[in-house]
Amino acid sequence: MSIFTQYYKEKENIGRLLVKCPNKPGIVAALSKFLFDHGADIIESSQYSSDDESNMFYIRFEYYCEELLEKRSQMEGDFLELAAAFKMDYTFTYNNKQKRSAIFVSKEVHCLMELLWEWQSGDLDMDIPLVISNHETAREIVEPLGIPFYYIPANKDIREEVEAKQMELMEEYDIDLLILARYMQILTPNFVERFPNQIINIHHSFLPAFIGARPYERAYERGVKLIGATSHYVTNDLDEGPIIEQDIERVDHRDNVPMLKKIGQQVERRVLARAVKWHLQDRIIVKDNKTIVFH
Amino acid sequence: MSIFTQYYKEKENIGRLLVKCPNKPGIVAALSKFLFDHGADIIESSQYSSDDESNMFYIRFEYYCEELLEKRSQMEGDFLELAAAFKMDYTFTYNNKQKRSAIFVSKEVHCLMELLWEWQSGDLDMDIPLVISNHETAREIVEPLGIPFYYIPANKDIREEVEAKQMELMEEYDIDLLILARYMQILTPNFVERFPNQIINIHHSFLPAFIGARPYERAYERGVKLIGATSHYVTNDLDEGPIIEQDIERVDHRDNVPMLKKIGQQVERRVLARAVKWHLQDRIIVKDNKTIVFH
Amino acid sequence: MSIFTQYYKEKENIGRLLVKCPNKPGIVAALSKFLFDHGADIIESSQYSSDDESNMFYIRFEYYCEELLEKRSQMEGDFLELAAAFKMDYTFTYNNKQKRSAIFVSKEVHCLMELLWEWQSGDLDMDIPLVISNHETAREIVEPLGIPFYYIPANKDIREEVEAKQMELMEEYDIDLLILARYMQILTPNFVERFPNQIINIHHSFLPAFIGARPYERAYERGVKLIGATSHYVTNDLDEGPIIEQDIERVDHRDNVPMLKKIGQQVERRVLARAVKWHLQDRIIVKDNKTIVFH
Amino acid sequence: MSIFTQYYKEKENIGRLLVKCPNKPGIVAALSKFLFDHGADIIESSQYSSDDESNMFYIRFEYYCEELLEKRSQMEGDFLELAAAFKMDYTFTYNNKQKRSAIFVSKEVHCLMELLWEWQSGDLDMDIPLVISNHETAREIVEPLGIPFYYIPANKDIREEVEAKQMELMEEYDIDLLILARYMQILTPNFVERFPNQIINIHHSFLPAFIGARPYERAYERGVKLIGATSHYVTNDLDEGPIIEQDIERVDHRDNVPMLKKIGQQVERRVLARAVKWHLQDRIIVKDNKTIVFH
Repeated sequence: MSIFTQYYKEKENIGRLLVKCPNKPGIVAALSKFLFDHGADIIESSQYSSDDESNMFYIRFEYYCEELLEKRSQMEGDFLELAAAFKMDYTFTYNNKQKRSAIFVSKEVHCLMELLWEWQSGDLDMDIPLVISNHETAREIVEPLGIPFYYIPANKDIREEVEAKQMELMEEYDIDLLILARYMQILTPNFVERFPNQIINIHHSFLPAFIGARPYERAYERGVKLIGATSHYVTNDLDEGPIIEQDIERVDHRDNVPMLKKIGQQVERRVLARAVKWHLQDRIIVKDNKTIVFH
Repeated sequence: MSIFTQYYKEKENIGRLLVKCPNKPGIVAALSKFLFDHGADIIESSQYSSDDESNMFYIRFEYYCEELLEKRSQMEGDFLELAAAFKMDYTFTYNNKQKRSAIFVSKEVHCLMELLWEWQSGDLDMDIPLVISNHETAREIVEPLGIPFYYIPANKDIREEVEAKQMELMEEYDIDLLILARYMQILTPNFVERFPNQIINIHHSFLPAFIGARPYERAYERGVKLIGATSHYVTNDLDEGPIIEQDIERVDHRDNVPMLKKIGQQVERRVLARAVKWHLQDRIIVKDNKTIVFH
Repeated sequence: MSIFTQYYKEKENIGRLLVKCPNKPGIVAALSKFLFDHGADIIESSQYSSDDESNMFYIRFEYYCEELLEKRSQMEGDFLELAAAFKMDYTFTYNNKQKRSAIFVSKEVHCLMELLWEWQSGDLDMDIPLVISNHETAREIVEPLGIPFYYIPANKDIREEVEAKQMELMEEYDIDLLILARYMQILTPNFVERFPNQIINIHHSFLPAFIGARPYERAYERGVKLIGATSHYVTNDLDEGPIIEQDIERVDHRDNVPMLKKIGQQVERRVLARAVKWHLQDRIIVKDNKTIVFH
Repeated sequence: MSIFTQYYKEKENIGRLLVKCPNKPGIVAALSKFLFDHGADIIESSQYSSDDESNMFYIRFEYYCEELLEKRSQMEGDFLELAAAFKMDYTFTYNNKQKRSAIFVSKEVHCLMELLWEWQSGDLDMDIPLVISNHETAREIVEPLGIPFYYIPANKDIREEVEAKQMELMEEYDIDLLILARYMQILTPNFVERFPNQIINIHHSFLPAFIGARPYERAYERGVKLIGATSHYVTNDLDEGPIIEQDIERVDHRDNVPMLKKIGQQVERRVLARAVKWHLQDRIIVKDNKTIVFH
């Protein structure tokens, strides 16, 4: 058996460290020394240095450390000095703490179903404390799995009340990731600002083509030969947030709008599932309006 | 040996018939009877009926007919009656008549090189009577192949004189296809109207994303995860003509603008070559601002 | 509304005709005249002529015909003469008659789930009268949908008894398609012969690579950079039947066997679903040990 | 301007270090400290730990170091102690020293042309001191570029004399990479052993499918729906060496053998070019009969 297979048996002893700081010599040496000195064995590391005038450095470590949960506060305390010296932005995350994800959905359930499926088969390591929808359609899918389902009717006239209720639930359930699995309501700036880089949306086009409503209809009218889907973090610029993943499928002149939608749903499913997976594994760093994805 | 292998040995006996007409019962029967009665054996046929209120019918036949060149005027004459009965728009083309293609290029020669390569290896069945460029870069590639190279400096202030010279050459060389193989000058409406559905351009983005200038720079700024290229017929709406073919390649955060361009060139090469090939084989029918491609 | 949208509203008036015969001039003319004379309007047609010494011709028509079910026996009767004249092998199928499909599955349910999902959303136009498994795993997925689930334990020592029971069920339920959705038992020649070109299997490799058992383990050992899946009709040569569809996904050195299996399952799902769909739409003609797929 | 853009302007100051050793805590810390202490700034690093009982660790660094060429012998000397402590296999390579690559080709020149093209446009950072062929076909492509072309007729009866001549040239030109760009002669064990992991071949199938001769003919006979190409290091097991890269293209029943070859050539071109590029950038580590590719 490999040493890593052993490591992953002790899930509670796996941690991750993400760091962003101005680039200068010695960062990798300092960080890897720190981890070594604290008994942490590096399982995976990925780095990236920005190729622009910002000259920033980004690194992600996944490590194993015996009795990590006992040592973590000591470790995080000791890190302060190093972080200050290099002006680091950083995050320690711990594998034993699952992210608590709320899924928002409207009428089309294919993305929701893909997420639930991947979650049931152990591929999405998260808690799903609730599903929220502005339609009743998904209830029969969600409740048999023991997940609370909240039906909150929504439209643009009652947006504030709707979001007040949603926000209450987010707090009640202590949510740290919101997944918009074809949720067809726009969120207000207020709401979005509460969850920076914590809301993942799936847009049913290859952005920046067909920003906004009815992308498949517009793709049909334009006569494109490929259709796509885009998963991105939600910001207050509609469909303009940092892109996490995109994919496409080939179509031709015979494909009418319903067929484009059908083909597109397959793309949406896999693009959203990948983006969520990478987020859960802390593989994504947001840099300006882009993502660095260490996969 | 198959009967078709035999047919293709007699290239001069291969013809194509493209038809567009209002959809109604009996079209296929009438057309296939016509071909049979004239001794034409159908090698390939493809049809499409529009799925909208226009209710149009489109069909392409490729056929073999002994002594086709002797029979063709009789055949075309006989067709008039049938065409009138069904209100057909149609084109007869003959395999022995190669399309005469002018290639326009600026500084970047990768698309030109791909076309020349495919042409030399027999995969693009066309004549290339000349190459026109607003730079001298391509001369050393073109002239060794015995193809006349015309250097015509261009910029937006002298557009009319430039196009007058170009048009003269198009007429002198009896050109029926213009391939813009990364030709970075905009053509005037006057020029474009002279060649309806006869000018093929390669745009270095996945249209309709990044219409206009500097698409790779904008793709980089937007942080897309796939970059693409689009081949389309040129109309007077910039980058808005009927799309013939598109393809993409995966990129990631490490790819800066020069790397995106490099990766993109590979996509541009193959997308343009495919579009030109289908045009040469009369596989494309333009319907409004879209293409039907029978491949 | 297009005429075809209207046609498809009358599902019972949609029929298909598949023909295979020695190639000679006039087939398309004769067939399309026949359909026209019987009031059938061609919606879609695809043809193929073999490019070898067999010189065979293959064609598929999908057509609309008012009161088709009343006319069908007359039409089929009238066809006999034409069929004899051209020595045609042919099949008439009718859209109102759904194929009755039995799904066989073992422990891994991802392919079964994909089929059920596509079936529920209306994309697989078939009846599923029963699911058979040599494990109990799938029962809780199948029974809530109202589909009878038969648990028939199996191993190579009791193969004959097992197949006797299975055959009885096939007859009782009047099955005309068997889908092996990761059913890990080998079928005997006797059984296979009863269902020529009616058993579709998904093999978890890019055939002919990794024929037989444990393909992911062997892919891992060989260090391949892509893994695939293959859907094929079952014959008595193990994993050697006519291939219907194949697809692949990229992997790298970090992917161990469990990860390869996980990635592979995504490919298996979509490859099997596509193959089944094409079979249900009568798009597949078997020619020797290959398939012609008119998609 | 980014610091890395500056670094890459000083090509002679870019170095790479590849290390393989038994996995144990502290390797990354020790190596990154070593580089930092010697004034080397890490530009890129990638690591991999084997997921099997071998428990090996692999890492690749690309770094910038002022006056690297003056410092390199000191650096390499200092490294001995560290290497011994961790039982490291390692290689230092220097960006200013281009690999000297001999290209072997037979009659089909498409892979050769792709390599020359990529090389001319600066994407393959190597020297090409000579091209060797058992046919005269490629001479007119190679010589105009100022590259010596050696015509050495070959067949299995004179294999030893042929290889003696080839070996002489390899030594005369001080070759450290051999690229078999569709060279259709088998090399003897003697020859292969002289160049361990230094001979890159392109095989015209998706290995391990269609090992050996005539893969496209066999792909056609089997009726596959995808065809592929595989680039691998050459060992003495025919077509069994460590796979570097693979890719595929979709085909269908209409594609006869010449069309499969034509489509396949496009795949071969890009697969070989990628493999060579990664080798030139020291991105490949061979582990048993597999490759770790840090791209």
